Amino acid sequence: MMTEGEFLAALRTLPLHPGSRDLRDDCALIEIGEETLVFNHDLMAEDTHFRREADLADVAWKLVALNLSDLASKGAKPIGILLGHALGGNDQRFVEGLREVLTTYDVPLMGGDTIAATGASTFSLTAIGRATSRPVPSRSAAVPGHSVFVTGTVGRAMLGFEGFDEHLEAFNRPRPRLEEGIALAPLVGGMMDVSDGLLLDVFRMAKASNTSIAIEASAVPVADPDRASECMRWGDDYELLFTLPSGAALPVAATMIGTVEERGRAPLLLDGNAVSDPEGLGYQHG
Amino acid sequence: MMTEGEFLAALRTLPLHPGSRDLRDDCALIEIGEETLVFNHDLMAEDTHFRREADLADVAWKLVALNLSDLASKGAKPIGILLGHALGGNDQRFVEGLREVLTTYDVPLMGGDTIAATGASTFSLTAIGRATSRPVPSRSAAVPGHSVFVTGTVGRAMLGFEGFDEHLEAFNRPRPRLEEGIALAPLVGGMMDVSDGLLLDVFRMAKASNTSIAIEASAVPVADPDRASECMRWGDDYELLFTLPSGAALPVAATMIGTVEERGRAPLLLDGNAVSDPEGLGYQHG
Repeated sequence: MMTEGEFLAALRTLPLHPGSRDLRDDCALIEIGEETLVFNHDLMAEDTHFRREADLADVAWKLVALNLSDLASKGAKPIGILLGHALGGNDQRFVEGLREVLTTYDVPLMGGDTIAATGASTFSLTAIGRATSRPVPSRSAAVPGHSVFVTGTVGRAMLGFEGFDEHLEAFNRPRPRLEEGIALAPLVGGMMDVSDGLLLDVFRMAKASNTSIAIEASAVPVADPDRASECMRWGDDYELLFTLPSGAALPVAATMIGTVEERGRAPLLLDGNAVSDPEGLGYQHG
Repeated sequence: MMTEGEFLAALRTLPLHPGSRDLRDDCALIEIGEETLVFNHDLMAEDTHFRREADLADVAWKLVALNLSDLASKGAKPIGILLGHALGGNDQRFVEGLREVLTTYDVPLMGGDTIAATGASTFSLTAIGRATSRPVPSRSAAVPGHSVFVTGTVGRAMLGFEGFDEHLEAFNRPRPRLEEGIALAPLVGGMMDVSDGLLLDVFRMAKASNTSIAIEASAVPVADPDRASECMRWGDDYELLFTLPSGAALPVAATMIGTVEERGRAPLLLDGNAVSDPEGLGYQHG
């Protein structure tokens, strides 16, 4: 058994499509004539991503939403989804959640596969979108001198997971920032969605862009100020993290949390302290 | 819990993309400018699609091959694949099998997702291709008067599954008929790949095309003539089933096994006997 990092390194030795961006970005791109199509593929597995007793309507919503969130980070407008579904749970509830999320975001179902599986359920989803702006934003395009922003508030999904009523929705039914992503795409330097924890994703953006990013912890909008450190690390928030030239007008509601600098001692500077090890900054698989 | 048929019926009440073909075909289509892109998404789950002791190199090969087989049935040339991988088995062997199949068919990896999952593994794959001929072939376009053909020999995967050495390869490493599909696409009436058993897939083509298809069992090329009935029903062969105008020249090696007729008493006529219930004709999920 490999870790996720080892597995990705092994995959990088395979024949790769140029639109794979060396498997270092969240989405794959295909240029077709004048268009750029954007693809994202994510799995959700029982026990790993949702609890056995979860309402499958929430699982279906979240599966679609987290894929759409990746499209949002590319400023892409969704075209449709392909679904891989393992029968065996409350399939009716799954379809109901799917109906709600597809209707809310006006995204049609294109096809997929249905299987009978044993044991813990796994669901897969491919979201297909059309880029609205080129170059398509990427996590590797943060520019020294840019300011760093995040939409919304981080830590809400954590509190929802823990059972706080007013945050349940944030955990169960995250809302992909599709409109914000489209508004931001022509303006940003780097952009990505925050899925594994804000600080870890900042670290990754800085590393991919070969810059350092300085974050002021006190500036980060957190759902519970007494647990700010956890809120910045827990993940599952699906907000957008992006950079804009200093002083640029913000086209969407967002909070400035730091600045991009020339690459210094470490990818992340947290309140002035260099952080060169991503361990402990967020959720890492495998 | 729903059956696959009930689940599909429920999905058909959701917002559908016009390229979904009402979820009645194997692939979804998107028109982009002058191009038609073809998408297929399939899952493979431990216990359902492969045995726990299977070599994951074979599983990776088959996962890619069965998705490419669907592209073949559309006469599509592959552009790339997105992979969803659950870590935890012999991930190194999985990568090796992936390398072999991607190299053999000159298909690049575009991206995907890697998760840590508990229990039985599930893998997902989305194959993306470009149609080489329009209209794109479909299972619903069989034309009365056409002759019906199948490539290769059916039943080899069954014998491979049972452990017969000379057929192991057919079960573990099926070969998608990509070149044949591209050669046939401009000429055929109906076309589909044979995945769930020849007779069941003939039944489905006839039903989708609102025709009857008469099959002569003695004409069907089977791997073991003493078990012809099983060979025609077991599935997993990934041959192409297609129709051509009577007397047309065959551009690929294939065997004529029957004729398309105006819709009569039943979708399938097997040696003259009307079969209106698909039960027992092949492998049906759920």
